[in-house]
Amino acid sequence: MSQAKIIQPRTLKGFRDYLPEAAGPREALLQTAREVYRSFGFRPIDTPALEYTEVLLGKGGEESDKQLYRFEDHGGRDVGLRFDLTVPLARFVAQHAGSLGMPFKRYHMGTVWRGENTQRGRYREFMQCDFDTIGTESVVSDVETLLVVFSLFQRIGVACTLRVNHRGVLQGVLERAGVGGESAAVLRALDKLAKIGPEKVSAEMQASAGLSAQQAQEILELPAIEGTRQEVLRRVEALVTGTEAGERGLAVLRGVDAGLRAAGVPEEALVFDLSIARGLDYYTGIVVETFLNDLPGIGSVCSGGRYDDLASVYSKQRMPGVGASLGVDRLLAALEELKVALPGTRNRSVFLAFFDGDRGPQYLALAQSLREQGLDVELYPEAKKLGAQLKYADRLGFPCAVIIGGDEWEQGNAQIKDLVQGDSRTVALAELAAELHSSLA
Amino acid sequence: MSQAKIIQPRTLKGFRDYLPEAAGPREALLQTAREVYRSFGFRPIDTPALEYTEVLLGKGGEESDKQLYRFEDHGGRDVGLRFDLTVPLARFVAQHAGSLGMPFKRYHMGTVWRGENTQRGRYREFMQCDFDTIGTESVVSDVETLLVVFSLFQRIGVACTLRVNHRGVLQGVLERAGVGGESAAVLRALDKLAKIGPEKVSAEMQASAGLSAQQAQEILELPAIEGTRQEVLRRVEALVTGTEAGERGLAVLRGVDAGLRAAGVPEEALVFDLSIARGLDYYTGIVVETFLNDLPGIGSVCSGGRYDDLASVYSKQRMPGVGASLGVDRLLAALEELKVALPGTRNRSVFLAFFDGDRGPQYLALAQSLREQGLDVELYPEAKKLGAQLKYADRLGFPCAVIIGGDEWEQGNAQIKDLVQGDSRTVALAELAAELHSSLA
Repeated sequence: MSQAKIIQPRTLKGFRDYLPEAAGPREALLQTAREVYRSFGFRPIDTPALEYTEVLLGKGGEESDKQLYRFEDHGGRDVGLRFDLTVPLARFVAQHAGSLGMPFKRYHMGTVWRGENTQRGRYREFMQCDFDTIGTESVVSDVETLLVVFSLFQRIGVACTLRVNHRGVLQGVLERAGVGGESAAVLRALDKLAKIGPEKVSAEMQASAGLSAQQAQEILELPAIEGTRQEVLRRVEALVTGTEAGERGLAVLRGVDAGLRAAGVPEEALVFDLSIARGLDYYTGIVVETFLNDLPGIGSVCSGGRYDDLASVYSKQRMPGVGASLGVDRLLAALEELKVALPGTRNRSVFLAFFDGDRGPQYLALAQSLREQGLDVELYPEAKKLGAQLKYADRLGFPCAVIIGGDEWEQGNAQIKDLVQGDSRTVALAELAAELHSSLA
Repeated sequence: MSQAKIIQPRTLKGFRDYLPEAAGPREALLQTAREVYRSFGFRPIDTPALEYTEVLLGKGGEESDKQLYRFEDHGGRDVGLRFDLTVPLARFVAQHAGSLGMPFKRYHMGTVWRGENTQRGRYREFMQCDFDTIGTESVVSDVETLLVVFSLFQRIGVACTLRVNHRGVLQGVLERAGVGGESAAVLRALDKLAKIGPEKVSAEMQASAGLSAQQAQEILELPAIEGTRQEVLRRVEALVTGTEAGERGLAVLRGVDAGLRAAGVPEEALVFDLSIARGLDYYTGIVVETFLNDLPGIGSVCSGGRYDDLASVYSKQRMPGVGASLGVDRLLAALEELKVALPGTRNRSVFLAFFDGDRGPQYLALAQSLREQGLDVELYPEAKKLGAQLKYADRLGFPCAVIIGGDEWEQGNAQIKDLVQGDSRTVALAELAAELHSSLA
């Protein structure tokens, strides 16, 4: 370890370190999500970061292919880093179908990698946080998926609106407009409405799906359909009656409406929005996007839907499912902008100053005793000047500091200093834990 | 998505899926560790999985080099997957030194990758879980590191013994034996004692460090020094007096002894063991290994120590530190063998059978209401035969099931079926939450 050669400490472009200020909220968000997912019976799984390229690309389009971190491993295998958690889930359920049992309800929080263009402010490494119910077509699971999303944002403490649609309803509308065969291309265009506006969407529908201007106009009227869920359902009924896909979708949306009302979700928290299409061909039933009421412009922070068959690439067994994915990074950025403190991120720890260098064991004993009484305690490790210690405590956001010098030790007292207000008070050591608990409450 | 081409679902050799039965305990262990680390003031960080190869290998020996997953990324950069969390920590503190402030107390839980020979039962992807205090040489931080380890195993609920030594003490002993200049090679040999026995260690000391048989014999007497911490300290004093390194180490061990006694750690939970050397040249102060009392043979489940300078490869600023790393996989395997249930892994959820297909909204409403009253509830999504539903619930380890058929709905009742004992009882819906809370308690 020669000092001569210093290697520049740096991270790769598109990658980032999480300092405690960023890692703490992310950890709190994931823990909140875990608790909510678990409260509905979802259980955790994990899969490897590295997979056979053949497995990863089995279903992927050209876009995933270009973005894949792909290389040859020590054994000459063609491998890649997972670019989402859906492909690994499909591989996982196909591989373990015999031992999982159905329905299979899982959540998965994991890092994924995409060699994307970073100029759009995107990162090449980010976390996904998905939950899915595999092996049932029941509308109960559709409702539950939406309830999980609603409950999660309620627990986080931020108001959101779930915007829900059904691919069957869209298919029915397209069939009635005489363009049912082009639905994939039409829906991909419709999905861009918020981003590129109605004129460009119309142009794309005409160019890529061969619609007439009149037909594109009819499709573009869907997003204008607004109102209560009941009102939208009545409009949908008029639009899709006579089409099999449309009537099937309408029945599901009716079940969703009834289930959510019964479960006490406020009417305004979940609306039916016929413009929600989701670009992925993958979805076949309900689709959902979630917008923060105070920051809708950042886009959906939790999206998902129902699919007919998850693992057709890896298995002949049909596996329908429904689920959603939390946009961890986007949501964390939004919560920071909205100054919403996540549950568990408020600093409720105590800072214990180290005032008298000869009394190390006494400070260590006190700190451990306070911990045993349910407090988090950081003991400063050196008898530095008190000012420097308090500056450190203040910078880390401790709400209060405990200061005990030689005199206080003799008298069996401690000073509690409020680092926000600046005032101090003296309490007996025997009452310190109780006093700190009430100060922090 | 043609059904014709089925890709075989498989994972890479040395990699594995975590099914819920394995992912649940791991999640619980990491959450327990987080809570303990936080209770001492440690805060989370994260770093990228991919780094410049130059950064990863800056300090690494030949072994890391061979095991590194290394490739060229889309931009032609020479990159690799991190093989531990220590090298990224060193890079991290060097890169962010200006904004971190010292002391810097961090924990880091993350996946690392090593292209190891899997024949020894090792995996190529595994999780590390480290905590460190950087920027102080205080013995208070040494004591605290050991207290964290002790508290963690106490919280997990498994008896362990921390075996602690000090590299300075070993150095002093070697100097007195006249082989101080060969200490690295001698300690590497000594570290293998448990694995290969005293004869082979003696042979290695003679071959690689040039010791005489007599000198090797003297060193090999160290592990035989046993007794209370006070007794070992008295023996150490006799062995190292007159050597600077040895006296420094002795003073630290005395501070450790006093601090731990003050903090209430039982004498037998932490012993001084002069045979603990730790192979890494890296350590310069205390070294610690942790053994489970009921399963010592699996080796240390939490190891660490103090080092003089963490980031000399990336920075001219000297950064001393102390920390330890929890052996997540080894510990999980041991807890499974010992049948120790981790805090938070006991299934305290309620299974709600779906008995009457027309009452979906009612079941959804009841499930959500129970959740709002603090219960975790899994509602079966389909009105399948009750036997199949209960079999599912039993397989997933639910302790009880709630069954409400048409008659019960009419009468406002529910049946609670104990899935362990098999007996059932009828309770009023209004009292269901309270009854379930007491059943699960």
